Amino acid sequence: MEHTKYLLTEKEMPTSWYNIQADLPKPLAPAIHPGTMQPLGPADLAPLFPMELIMQEVSQERYIDIPGEVIDIYKAWRPTTLYRARALEKALDTPAKIFYKYEGSSPAGSHKPNTAVPQAFYNKKEGIKRLTTETGAGQWGSSMAFACCQFDIELKVYMVKVSYQQKPYRRMMMETWGAQCVPSPSPDTNSGRAALAEDPNSPGSLGLAISEAVEDAAPRADSHYSLGSVLNHVLMHQTVIGLESLKQMEMAGEYPDVVIGCVGGGSNFGGMALPFVHQNLTAGKNTRIIAVEPSSCPTLTKGKFAFDYGDVAAMAPIVKMFTLGHKFMPPPVHAGGLRYHGMSPIISHLYDLGLIEAKAVLQLPTFEAGIQFARTEGFISAPETNHAIRATIDEALRCRESGEKKVILFSHSGHGHFDLAAYDAYLSGKLADYEYPEALVESALKDLPQCLLG
Amino acid sequence: MEHTKYLLTEKEMPTSWYNIQADLPKPLAPAIHPGTMQPLGPADLAPLFPMELIMQEVSQERYIDIPGEVIDIYKAWRPTTLYRARALEKALDTPAKIFYKYEGSSPAGSHKPNTAVPQAFYNKKEGIKRLTTETGAGQWGSSMAFACCQFDIELKVYMVKVSYQQKPYRRMMMETWGAQCVPSPSPDTNSGRAALAEDPNSPGSLGLAISEAVEDAAPRADSHYSLGSVLNHVLMHQTVIGLESLKQMEMAGEYPDVVIGCVGGGSNFGGMALPFVHQNLTAGKNTRIIAVEPSSCPTLTKGKFAFDYGDVAAMAPIVKMFTLGHKFMPPPVHAGGLRYHGMSPIISHLYDLGLIEAKAVLQLPTFEAGIQFARTEGFISAPETNHAIRATIDEALRCRESGEKKVILFSHSGHGHFDLAAYDAYLSGKLADYEYPEALVESALKDLPQCLLG
Repeated sequence: MEHTKYLLTEKEMPTSWYNIQADLPKPLAPAIHPGTMQPLGPADLAPLFPMELIMQEVSQERYIDIPGEVIDIYKAWRPTTLYRARALEKALDTPAKIFYKYEGSSPAGSHKPNTAVPQAFYNKKEGIKRLTTETGAGQWGSSMAFACCQFDIELKVYMVKVSYQQKPYRRMMMETWGAQCVPSPSPDTNSGRAALAEDPNSPGSLGLAISEAVEDAAPRADSHYSLGSVLNHVLMHQTVIGLESLKQMEMAGEYPDVVIGCVGGGSNFGGMALPFVHQNLTAGKNTRIIAVEPSSCPTLTKGKFAFDYGDVAAMAPIVKMFTLGHKFMPPPVHAGGLRYHGMSPIISHLYDLGLIEAKAVLQLPTFEAGIQFARTEGFISAPETNHAIRATIDEALRCRESGEKKVILFSHSGHGHFDLAAYDAYLSGKLADYEYPEALVESALKDLPQCLLG
Repeated sequence: MEHTKYLLTEKEMPTSWYNIQADLPKPLAPAIHPGTMQPLGPADLAPLFPMELIMQEVSQERYIDIPGEVIDIYKAWRPTTLYRARALEKALDTPAKIFYKYEGSSPAGSHKPNTAVPQAFYNKKEGIKRLTTETGAGQWGSSMAFACCQFDIELKVYMVKVSYQQKPYRRMMMETWGAQCVPSPSPDTNSGRAALAEDPNSPGSLGLAISEAVEDAAPRADSHYSLGSVLNHVLMHQTVIGLESLKQMEMAGEYPDVVIGCVGGGSNFGGMALPFVHQNLTAGKNTRIIAVEPSSCPTLTKGKFAFDYGDVAAMAPIVKMFTLGHKFMPPPVHAGGLRYHGMSPIISHLYDLGLIEAKAVLQLPTFEAGIQFARTEGFISAPETNHAIRATIDEALRCRESGEKKVILFSHSGHGHFDLAAYDAYLSGKLADYEYPEALVESALKDLPQCLLG
């Protein structure tokens, strides 16, 4: 079966990122300071982020130039390939045309370096010599490790302890790139020491790791903090995915009827979707744009659109987003990148405005889809990506029923080379599934900052 | 630092493989039947291989067309990227220009699918429904698993037991693609049962795994056997690497003064080197072509050019090659793909004729080189590849001393995503090194088939 791909030259790479804030029919709600409960100003964020990223976070400019130094490093793997999934189409016997944008070819194996590189660059430019960050499964930490060694910046990664123990390869990858990686809770911060005092065997959590990374960076003049999803500037950096895809779909002589991506914090989905939302808003297009989340952590489909903290410890800025409550602990599904209680404010806002759709899928059917994809298209995908593949296959099977020749484009966020234990568990019938416990909704939401409930 | 790459379009992909047998100044010695000690004929090989591969093995045609069905699947990842390693050059402060051809972007992560796909295709064409093969570290087995699911062929892989236990991810990868993978020795064959009877805890060996795979396939009409290196047709399939590189170097406006590749059985090195040997032989070029092997298994630099068996059990065809003796057990270096007692007859022949060079490198300096490469160029490389990187860096450092602006091209055989434990051992000072015990030379060579010593 022929494998068909659409390649851009380096000259066709985007030279600016797309900022959807310029085109929103209604502006985003401001972020709130968790101490004062007042809107955050740039100065509040300066101990953590370089000023150029702080300004990008609130910019209303439609396009922001990608610095030449960032493009130089993007060229290690960009532009990425857009594939027509002919072998999958044939296996599904569908009249639908399926396309996917493959981000697994970056050195770190996912889309995450698209924002790790500019974040490292702007920090370097501001004279920062050291960054801290947190990581769950390790996709983000390893991407920052790659980016920091490109700019000769020191990096310390606080990795959720249970992942640190279960996924040693991601830690080794960070160390190969020269980063320091410690299990969180660690004895290196007050938050870590407090957690260890309470429970020396604490498995850690993303919320706690954020607290440690922030506490480490904030007081040090040589250090900043970086975040791999959720924030406006992060989604904007990721729009290179959708901007390239627009050109590649044009090369293919098609325009998508449906755009699909998996969604956790929102960075991969946003990177693909925002340029297509732009086309819907301004160019008379009418593409359905679908965010796919795990049924075990159904932020968009079952959460509440409200002001909530970004972290468990309630130290991070408060933003208006779909949330399951900042104390919600998602079940241990293998799609670690989708285990977040909240959702990027931009994605939340678009969903609230009815400009995008959302659906939730169970874990077992996502692995079934990932295996069908591997056996046809060849690539073994990350568990997160398998959510997008599941929704794509479902859409293509509906086309088989209806006879519709829909054009479906999905965002392939990365490879699954470090997730094979999950495939093994699935193939040997040992993988569990998790529905979201309905009873949790009310109890989890009682922790929202009450003064901001509107 | 700018990352520079040279991309071919699909239209510029080679449409035929290059067969160096057409250009050898002296023909290869014939392969010998291990039972009769007479030259092998096509009929002897028919129980194991499809006739088209058997004919390719002895063909004297300079170019052999790549079937359209193979090109269709090559397109999943080919043409591959040629990079200029500017960041590495800068770190080395060398006037040399370093280029590398990156084969790590294939679904299986190495160059091996270049031959796995045509092998599966020709077997399918001959009506074969099932293949068997052996694998050491798993690069080859996983590539065959990918290729077989593209052609809907059943695959059984005999994986050396010690690797089966130590590298479960490669086994899981094969299973994700639908192959069956069993530890060798297995209870499924006479050879396996005999080995288990002798030692139930036998760690297995590549030679034994070959015996099991051959014994399984030979008597079954529906089954054939496949091999991932050494044979003439395997090296020929791999010449897509060198043929593409020739075009890409032309795009870069350079021609290599030095071509470097790592060498175990010879398939990656041969794939890159043979088209450049062709240029040296017929187009007045004078490129140095260097095969890099581990000091622990120094087949070319310390072995003898003689007729020897391809496997430990002395059941495989006898070929004239550089060998350390078919009973030599290489030390457990992490470059599993380079742990072979012999060497492809073509590479051996070229080395004997003085048309290529060879050098041996120790394990620890190869990891040092791989880490320097990862921190500059971004990609984390397989331990095999690190041998080529070590030799490249050494050459570039010599250029720094001499001021020479040499153009160096090396073959990057694949990524190291499943080899991070070896990086971890290196970084934590726990990695051992192995010199080849000189005393072994004479004793290991006494097992050569004496009647064929010339």
